[in-house]
This record gives sequence, structure tokens and C-alpha cells, in this order.
Amino acid sequence: MSTTPQALVFDVFGTVVDWHGSVSREVRRHGLPVHAEDFARAWRAGYAPAMDAVRRGQLPWTNIDGLHRRILDALLAQNGLDLPEATRADLNLAWHRLDPWPDVPAGLTRLKAWRPVATLSNGHIRLLLDLARHGGLAWDALLSAELFGHYKPDPAVYRGAARLLGLRPADVTLVAAHPDDLRAAAACGLGTALVLRPDEQGQGRGLPAYAPGEFDVVVPDFGTLADRFGAAA
Amino acid sequence: MSTTPQALVFDVFGTVVDWHGSVSREVRRHGLPVHAEDFARAWRAGYAPAMDAVRRGQLPWTNIDGLHRRILDALLAQNGLDLPEATRADLNLAWHRLDPWPDVPAGLTRLKAWRPVATLSNGHIRLLLDLARHGGLAWDALLSAELFGHYKPDPAVYRGAARLLGLRPADVTLVAAHPDDLRAAAACGLGTALVLRPDEQGQGRGLPAYAPGEFDVVVPDFGTLADRFGAAA
Repeated sequence: MSTTPQALVFDVFGTVVDWHGSVSREVRRHGLPVHAEDFARAWRAGYAPAMDAVRRGQLPWTNIDGLHRRILDALLAQNGLDLPEATRADLNLAWHRLDPWPDVPAGLTRLKAWRPVATLSNGHIRLLLDLARHGGLAWDALLSAELFGHYKPDPAVYRGAARLLGLRPADVTLVAAHPDDLRAAAACGLGTALVLRPDEQGQGRGLPAYAPGEFDVVVPDFGTLADRFGAAA
Repeated sequence: MSTTPQALVFDVFGTVVDWHGSVSREVRRHGLPVHAEDFARAWRAGYAPAMDAVRRGQLPWTNIDGLHRRILDALLAQNGLDLPEATRADLNLAWHRLDPWPDVPAGLTRLKAWRPVATLSNGHIRLLLDLARHGGLAWDALLSAELFGHYKPDPAVYRGAARLLGLRPADVTLVAAHPDDLRAAAACGLGTALVLRPDEQGQGRGLPAYAPGEFDVVVPDFGTLADRFGAAA
């Protein structure tokens, strides 16, 4: 790594929390007559196109609750399911109750003792707040696409995060499980740390492709990230 | 109180942290040949006029570090003091190292266990982050005038806070030591809790005026506020 970061910002869905396991569990809990894991994957798969529709101006600014609900309603229709409004609303809130990966609470505590830690997520502030309270995650600050009116990977998000942290982009490192997110951050001058989450899409579904040396750090979990930065155990 | 709040937002300078005691201490530490307590009061007294200049458009958006530095430079000139740049810069950062009032850490922990707690300050995000780390304050979110491009008491700040928390204004209560701040919040529909800080301007310098029944709750400290809301001890 060229410089030691002065603050760390974290992608959240997939990097910090296990959306696949948590959403599958909630789909089963509601007794939907679908394959819960496939349904969770399909719900998540609708997310990038929905955000892109906002990014291209085809949809007005819509927060993640609104995007998740649009996708859910379409998926239910595809599956010929007509759920009552209250069930749809509760199911949509599954995304506010995602569990962190097992290595996250202890690793994040060590990293926070070393440098300020903040989210940098496309999730809105209320969703990030609920996830933090649900998972016991002690962020120093919640930073979100919502604050900038743009979704990642728009440069406004990465640059805006550095500005709010009072730092040059080079002094901020993005921690994420997704190469595309890290590449966009690097293009804005941020440092990059890839966390490998082979179970993000379901157990053993594999890792995204990236080139050797492409990111400053590549680690299997938050504890190893803390080790690499020399954060106290 | 008409309704039970679903989230609490807190003014910070004077309400959460003791700016007067902390800044006086830093002025003494730098050995300035001035009356440290008067100097701290004069520095703080320049703050509202400086923000008003931004609010009226006479100054472009300037964060609190920038406003504090303008006021400091003018005060030093008035006192005939010519300090080196590094000393001025460090002295200006005194506002990032303010200690919380003694009742705050324990009271805030109880309140946080009960409902989400966030700052709602004219201080910028980086300053609020530094104060939280300095004082061990575990906010759920940092909300700041900086996010809205307007300073309190502009309505955009109070309404913006409710929006980011995903709540109606009536479901959010502002906790503050300053009647003007609370009156502006109430005009936007927020609940109000006045915390009495008789030492804000220096020991025993007294309380601001307010009418009986003007605010939903009036308490002497954060522990009593937690009691009043029925937060677990």
C-alpha cells in the first residue's frame, strides 16, 4: 500500500452484512412458496439495474427501500403471488435486518480503535442506522449515496466521502467485496481493500474476477484486514 | 409530552460538550497572554454572527473550522497578538477536542439503548466525528448542517434530519440547551427537550430565559432525560 489510510470507508451489502443468508431466512419465515435462496438472489439481481435507472435519470431519486419494493412487487407478480400490503412491507424491511458476517463485529472494533470507520453505501441513512443497531456495529459515521444524491459508482460518492471526512481521497481506503466498486474508488484516488466473500451469493458460489496486484490489499476477513494495517488485537 | 419520540437528535456545543471549559484550558495551554475564560467567551460570541453571515448569503458556505478561524484571527488582532500559523491552526482545532459534560457518556448510553440517537449540530461531520471519538460518544448517526447546506435555525436542518431518519418531524425530539434552537425545531413540528447547562458560559453564569410549559421536557442532565423517557438504567 502506498500510503497509510487516515480513515476507512466500507461498502455494506455483501461486504459487512450477509444479505443472501439473511434475506433467504426472511423469505422462508414468511412461508413464500418459492425457492428462498433463488428468490433472494433474484431480488438482489434487480438492484443494480434499478440503481442504474436512477443514475441515468430514468427514475427520479428513489432510496433503496423504494427500489427494493419495486423489484419485490415485480418478482411476486412473476411468481404469481399476491401478498397483502403488510406482508410486502415487512418483507421489504428484511434489508434492514441483515446479519453481519461472523468476522465483522470483532474486526471492526479493532479497526475503529485504529482509525475512523464509516459506511459508504448505496443504502440510505435510515437503513444503515437500522443495520448498525441490528448488528451492533459501532461506526464513527454513516456516509451514504443518499447524502450526495448519486449512487456508487458515481465519482460524487467517493469524492463526497473524502470531503466529509476532511481528508484527501488518497488518505481514505474503501473496503469492499466488489471489484467494480473498488475500481471506481481507485479512479477517484482512494485506496482499495478487497475482502473476499465467496458465500455472498450463497454458500460457495464463488468470487468475482480481479487481476493480481489490482488492489492495495486483498484479505479474507476483517480480522486479517486489521492485522494488515497493524491495528492492535 | 404529546407523543413518545422515535428518535432523539442532539445539539452538541454547550448541550453535549463543555466548550467553555475545554477552550479556556487550551488557551491557557498555549500560554496566550489573555484572560482565558474571557477569550473563550469572545471566540464563541463571534460564532452566531458568522453563521448569520452565511445564512444571509454574505459569506459563501463555510464550515465551522473556517468560521472559528476567521473569528480567532480577528480576536488575536484585537489583542495585538501575532501567533505563528501552526499555533493558530492547532488552537483552532481545540473545538475538535471538547470534553463532554460529566453526565453525558452514561446518559447517552442509556438513551441509545432506548431509541436511536444522532447529533444535529452546526458543526461539520469531521468535527462531530472527532468530538465523538474524543469523548467516547456512540452516536447512531452524525447529522449536521453541513449535509443540508444550511445552518440552524433554518428549517431545512430540522426537516432534513427527520427525513434522513425516515420519520415524521413529530416523531423526532431535539435535545438542546438553547431555547432558540428548540423554538425553531418546534416550529418545524419536532418535540423539544431543554437541558439546563448553567455553566455553559463559565461556572454559574446562568441560564437562558424560557417560559414555563414552553418545551415538552426540561431536565438538568442526560440521566434525568433517560429517566423521563423511561429508558432502562
